[in-house]
Amino acid sequence: MSDRQLQRQMTAERIGAALEEGQFEQAKELFLNQLPGDQVEVFNLLEDERQTALLEHLDVDATADLFDRLEDAETLEAAESLSLERLADVLEEMEPDEAADLLGDLPPEQASLALQEMEDTEGVLPLLGYPDETAGGRMTTDFIALHRDTTSAEAIERLRHIDPDIRTPYYLFIVDREDRLSGVVGLRELVVAAPDRRMEAIMNPDVTYVAADTDQEAVARIMVRHDLSSLPVVDAQRQLLGVITHDDILDVITEEATEDIYRLANVGDVELEPESPVREQLRGRLPWLYLNTLTALFAAWVISRFESLIAAVAVLAVFQSVVAGQGGNAASQSVAMFVRALALGKVSPAQVWRLLGRQVWVGFLQGIAVGVMVGLGVFLWRGDPYLASVLGLAIVGNMIVAGIAGTLVPLGLKAIGQDPALASSVLVTALTDSLGFFIFLSLASIFQSYF
Amino acid sequence: MSDRQLQRQMTAERIGAALEEGQFEQAKELFLNQLPGDQVEVFNLLEDERQTALLEHLDVDATADLFDRLEDAETLEAAESLSLERLADVLEEMEPDEAADLLGDLPPEQASLALQEMEDTEGVLPLLGYPDETAGGRMTTDFIALHRDTTSAEAIERLRHIDPDIRTPYYLFIVDREDRLSGVVGLRELVVAAPDRRMEAIMNPDVTYVAADTDQEAVARIMVRHDLSSLPVVDAQRQLLGVITHDDILDVITEEATEDIYRLANVGDVELEPESPVREQLRGRLPWLYLNTLTALFAAWVISRFESLIAAVAVLAVFQSVVAGQGGNAASQSVAMFVRALALGKVSPAQVWRLLGRQVWVGFLQGIAVGVMVGLGVFLWRGDPYLASVLGLAIVGNMIVAGIAGTLVPLGLKAIGQDPALASSVLVTALTDSLGFFIFLSLASIFQSYF
Repeated sequence: MSDRQLQRQMTAERIGAALEEGQFEQAKELFLNQLPGDQVEVFNLLEDERQTALLEHLDVDATADLFDRLEDAETLEAAESLSLERLADVLEEMEPDEAADLLGDLPPEQASLALQEMEDTEGVLPLLGYPDETAGGRMTTDFIALHRDTTSAEAIERLRHIDPDIRTPYYLFIVDREDRLSGVVGLRELVVAAPDRRMEAIMNPDVTYVAADTDQEAVARIMVRHDLSSLPVVDAQRQLLGVITHDDILDVITEEATEDIYRLANVGDVELEPESPVREQLRGRLPWLYLNTLTALFAAWVISRFESLIAAVAVLAVFQSVVAGQGGNAASQSVAMFVRALALGKVSPAQVWRLLGRQVWVGFLQGIAVGVMVGLGVFLWRGDPYLASVLGLAIVGNMIVAGIAGTLVPLGLKAIGQDPALASSVLVTALTDSLGFFIFLSLASIFQSYF
Repeated sequence: MSDRQLQRQMTAERIGAALEEGQFEQAKELFLNQLPGDQVEVFNLLEDERQTALLEHLDVDATADLFDRLEDAETLEAAESLSLERLADVLEEMEPDEAADLLGDLPPEQASLALQEMEDTEGVLPLLGYPDETAGGRMTTDFIALHRDTTSAEAIERLRHIDPDIRTPYYLFIVDREDRLSGVVGLRELVVAAPDRRMEAIMNPDVTYVAADTDQEAVARIMVRHDLSSLPVVDAQRQLLGVITHDDILDVITEEATEDIYRLANVGDVELEPESPVREQLRGRLPWLYLNTLTALFAAWVISRFESLIAAVAVLAVFQSVVAGQGGNAASQSVAMFVRALALGKVSPAQVWRLLGRQVWVGFLQGIAVGVMVGLGVFLWRGDPYLASVLGLAIVGNMIVAGIAGTLVPLGLKAIGQDPALASSVLVTALTDSLGFFIFLSLASIFQSYF
């Protein structure tokens, strides 16, 4: 544990003790003395009842600030302990995009009551219609838009009167009379411009923007590629709807990476953590395990077709799993590379034949390398050249299967509009297992008389 | 393929054709008309010879800008086609942190010659000593530092005279007489401050900073947690050395996610892509496949201890892989959850016993669920209640093994300072395979007389 972690742990314990003793002011003070990012971690370290007690004594602003930074599931849990009236106050002070996310996560009835209770819903209402994982769901309405003919001096005057906590304080978005996005001015250009210069003269008209229904993964890719710290979101008429900021994109990239890792490992729920309740873990993991078990039983059926062969040559049972398993491992390598390359926009399904050729070639060479090693090892161990040859050959064959399956399954899923990480592992393992057993045992039955 | 991708593909083809016909000016113009982010993608779509031809005709600024945005490996490849003199000019114009990365990637001799050829090495020299994957290696020296007693008007005057392409244009870092970091001023605060206000009066003194040797993953976590768009880097005396910007962190998060995905899938080289040369793919993939093969041969040895049993009861060979495979799948689920939770700082090895208990419990319940399904299925298929029971029991046992291995291996690797993603897959599979076969075949040998 790092010093910093240790320190937070101690702070959490002191706050917990203060709350238990009813010294709420002291607990609150200890909590607010943390940097905002540390507040999140300290809050998470408190037990559920202590969290509720602390929230009762924080003022609305501090609560809103905390909710903005907690992860969505944590915010939801904390929000449910608040009274409706207080929840409405907090929602008003939260950043509009975070408030919209929370309203979307709350039970519909509670969300609608909270909205009715809120006095100012101007920022949050336009955001409620967009799915969470799109540009519209990620954007904030908390940005500065100016008309093309605003002067520098007027723009600076505007800056004086806006909330200093605004999310996008360093860019001014310039719109025409129809509210269509026409450019962007960085604060640096504003600072050094003469007071009477108009925005249209100092703005950069080459502004990158996205439509509200753009998937968040595509948004992240654009912001990374162009090194953007904010990205405007427009409607079909190019009217400015909102702005996505760099911190949202950090969240997106982290979430998408977790999603890919989980899907490749057959964990179906991206919110799962080692600490998640057992029931949730079973809900997220068991269905995928069942699916894998079905494919394993199919592979078992393939073996059962060779049962009399195995009864005669039991040593085949010793080595069959090496063929299936190494094919599976090689295929996982290809799948991981394709999932990542597709996520980062580095390959497109159009290149399929060239990429397939390369993976088959790699599969063949890996097959030779592993096949020779296993063949030699088994020959030295068992002294049977026929078994060693059949094993080596089967490994080469299954590695080629691995190259084909490891390419076509992820690219095929992508081509039909599915997430390549979602079912690749199951499908690819089903193929390398079943065909691995089949190739090995078929070859063995051909050479049976020599064993 | 999206419209945008198609457009870039067409642009790349037009540029390629122009280069082939010797119309270099036209090629250059087509290229420079792209947005900088699109330039990168178009450049990557060109064949190697065309890339070299294009680089010969771009001016130094455009080349430097392109190099700043390419990935490290791509920059290296492109840089090696430049003459030493031109390389030195380009390095001078590149962002200091990117230039330092490139110098670190070049062959030492070439890097040293390029440094001698450069006229201005002030920005890049201080960066060369830091490893790539630390705060020092990620920071830029291209930032604005002002003394505490600078006035607003003086600060704005400074802004007029700095390079408009500076990496961190929206924050001014405030230092004391000993160059120690004492606060930060956002450009918004500067714009709205009276001209004679001093920096120390308007700065935020609660500035988060890191030491130069902080690992990039920790840096990313701090910036995400605190929603920072830039993070100052200091030495042991708290003197300001450089600044890490949000785009660097996007790269870090993306790289670390790729690294985790690759390591879990036994791909040893994070730079590998489906298009990488066959030789590189073999170098990055084969060693891990060999390691897996060794553990598979060990598992085969475990089976070989039961060879006479299998010769007598060949049906065991049909189902043994179901036990081993489903244990492996369940363990992969746990490993993925722990790797991700550790990467995001959500669990610490100190919680090991509680977390172990939960995974063992989940393993037991998943074992019951899958064991009953497989047991019933096999009973219906083969009509043998003893085989079905042994199989079901072995699955429960191996799922518990999976829960233990899937927890202790990643947490153990973390506890000894290793990356939990690095060897988890191999170690965990070795355990669930070998013990899976052992449990199933041992149970079968106990109940052998009933089959």
